Amino acid sequence: MTLADLTQHAGEWLRGAGPMHDVVISSRVRLARNLAGTPFLSRCPREQQAELEQKMRQEILSAELAKGIFYVDVAAAGDLDRELLVERHLVSRQHAEASHPRGVAVSGDETISIMVNEEDHLRMQVLRSGLQLPEAVADANRIDDAMERCFDFAFHSRYGYLTACPTNVGTGLRLSVMLHLPGLKLAGEMDKAFRAAGDMRLAIRGLYGEGTEASGDFFQISNQTTLGRSENQYAEEFSERLIPAFIEYERRARKHLMDEQNALLEDKVSRAVATLRSAKMISSEETMSLLSVMRLGTNLGLTDDMDLSAINELFLLTQPAHLQKIHRRDMTPQERAQCRADMIRRRLDAG
Amino acid sequence: MTLADLTQHAGEWLRGAGPMHDVVISSRVRLARNLAGTPFLSRCPREQQAELEQKMRQEILSAELAKGIFYVDVAAAGDLDRELLVERHLVSRQHAEASHPRGVAVSGDETISIMVNEEDHLRMQVLRSGLQLPEAVADANRIDDAMERCFDFAFHSRYGYLTACPTNVGTGLRLSVMLHLPGLKLAGEMDKAFRAAGDMRLAIRGLYGEGTEASGDFFQISNQTTLGRSENQYAEEFSERLIPAFIEYERRARKHLMDEQNALLEDKVSRAVATLRSAKMISSEETMSLLSVMRLGTNLGLTDDMDLSAINELFLLTQPAHLQKIHRRDMTPQERAQCRADMIRRRLDAG
Repeated sequence: MTLADLTQHAGEWLRGAGPMHDVVISSRVRLARNLAGTPFLSRCPREQQAELEQKMRQEILSAELAKGIFYVDVAAAGDLDRELLVERHLVSRQHAEASHPRGVAVSGDETISIMVNEEDHLRMQVLRSGLQLPEAVADANRIDDAMERCFDFAFHSRYGYLTACPTNVGTGLRLSVMLHLPGLKLAGEMDKAFRAAGDMRLAIRGLYGEGTEASGDFFQISNQTTLGRSENQYAEEFSERLIPAFIEYERRARKHLMDEQNALLEDKVSRAVATLRSAKMISSEETMSLLSVMRLGTNLGLTDDMDLSAINELFLLTQPAHLQKIHRRDMTPQERAQCRADMIRRRLDAG
Repeated sequence: MTLADLTQHAGEWLRGAGPMHDVVISSRVRLARNLAGTPFLSRCPREQQAELEQKMRQEILSAELAKGIFYVDVAAAGDLDRELLVERHLVSRQHAEASHPRGVAVSGDETISIMVNEEDHLRMQVLRSGLQLPEAVADANRIDDAMERCFDFAFHSRYGYLTACPTNVGTGLRLSVMLHLPGLKLAGEMDKAFRAAGDMRLAIRGLYGEGTEASGDFFQISNQTTLGRSENQYAEEFSERLIPAFIEYERRARKHLMDEQNALLEDKVSRAVATLRSAKMISSEETMSLLSVMRLGTNLGLTDDMDLSAINELFLLTQPAHLQKIHRRDMTPQERAQCRADMIRRRLDAG
């Protein structure tokens, strides 16, 4: 299996069928680990970084962690391939854009990715569709255990796992969910959601993590503290108390819109579908925002032009690197805009 | 014939079939006249204004100026009727909103309107479809002659016709054409057009005259000076030299867009038609701007969803007073937005 095989469809985690999938796109767990007796990556000379990458790559590939796992040498990969990994949420933008020796191991269904030589020596990520945090934590622990058999991780009896950035010290765990919040956005209540997140000591970010804008009304919510409690305690509170509060806000906002502003909503959905069907050129940003309205309309029964998984897939496949990989060539922004419009029209016609 | 008969279709001048109708919507000639030995309107006490209105109304109606001429007592008319007259360009906004005794005589085909007690005692207007200024001037002269047989107009042997505002002294003539300039607008060249107008001592204004914004890419171009030359000299220069320059600019801009930005143009037209077909609510302003794109697309052969006269008619019938007159009731802005979207969809479906 290689990267090229990934471009025709979305990963398992984006199939739009997990629990609470009307609001929760996906759940993500990330563990940061570093090798004991080895300097943090930023302190390693380039030669040692290369040795580390070689060693970890071999161990990961021989550990039989998951079905169809394959490894991408990110430093050697082309620009488009690196961008593709970012668009599919398999590596961070920082990892894609760095210049030192580094890589990523990806499972065939894309639910697991292990970044080698990111900020930490190892960053293991599990992605699941819908709200499935305890399940994702269990997956991550399984991988962590397998990795512990290969490596001696830097661990302090009082502080826990040691990480390059002090904010990750302790469990090295970050939990996050990607939420689709078009109702709160339309109702002008995102401020309320941001305040609530602050009160719960959670971070809200855009679609591609830190420092990115929220496009298509997608928001990533993640925990901010990793010190002082167990993985399971976190996952439980996050998934049973904190995230359901946001789901509830969003559902209430949607219900209110349906009850009080039905005409406005129908107008918005009808226009979004018509524009997606009729555009001859369309930007990535406009696509996101129209698909977001269409996804809301589908959830509320206002349109059945496409099912949720097909909409989720279009979010991914219409992005720049995907378009170019699918067409096997570099394209100017205008060519992409035309290709994107064609792809959307064809998929909408196919139903 | 009464006002209510006008609401189902556009006036003859808007039928979209006159010369140069790809760019020129209509030609308009206005003559300002005042009665000799009578103070200008702003200097008349209310009682005298009422007497004047009565007297002029009778003379106009008995003069047999045009077929099916009817008179609207603007002071006694309801808000909607007054707004309807403005939307149809039969009276100025100032005339509609004043509070003194006043009226307007309108010919059955709406090519002639004579405002009584506007800024001047009489303002006679002729409207024609496309670029037909000499014809419109001839019509206006015919009306002027007929009026001269009824009234003694204030005339100075050196200055010409005396008017309430000194800018109209002389011929009392204003020539104007309404141009549709979406090509120049899209090409970002309206500045050039405004500068050219300034150089030619012409004024450019929005759809409803002085102080209004240009909506739907419609611009009124009119002469600024009325002193020192004959009506015919003006009309000739205006219609044979000045206006053709703007038509030429616009046609060149359209050709350039077709040659160089075809994809962009097709996209814009396709989206505009789709939005007009799919909207469940639409504002008057958005309607104007989408119909403008559709009108351009129709002229360039990019869409044949509707013919020009039907598009021209929609510009008029979708305006607030028209919508409410057609539905015979007052409506909130949201009700209008829904009615407007319904009307557009029905007319588009009818073809």
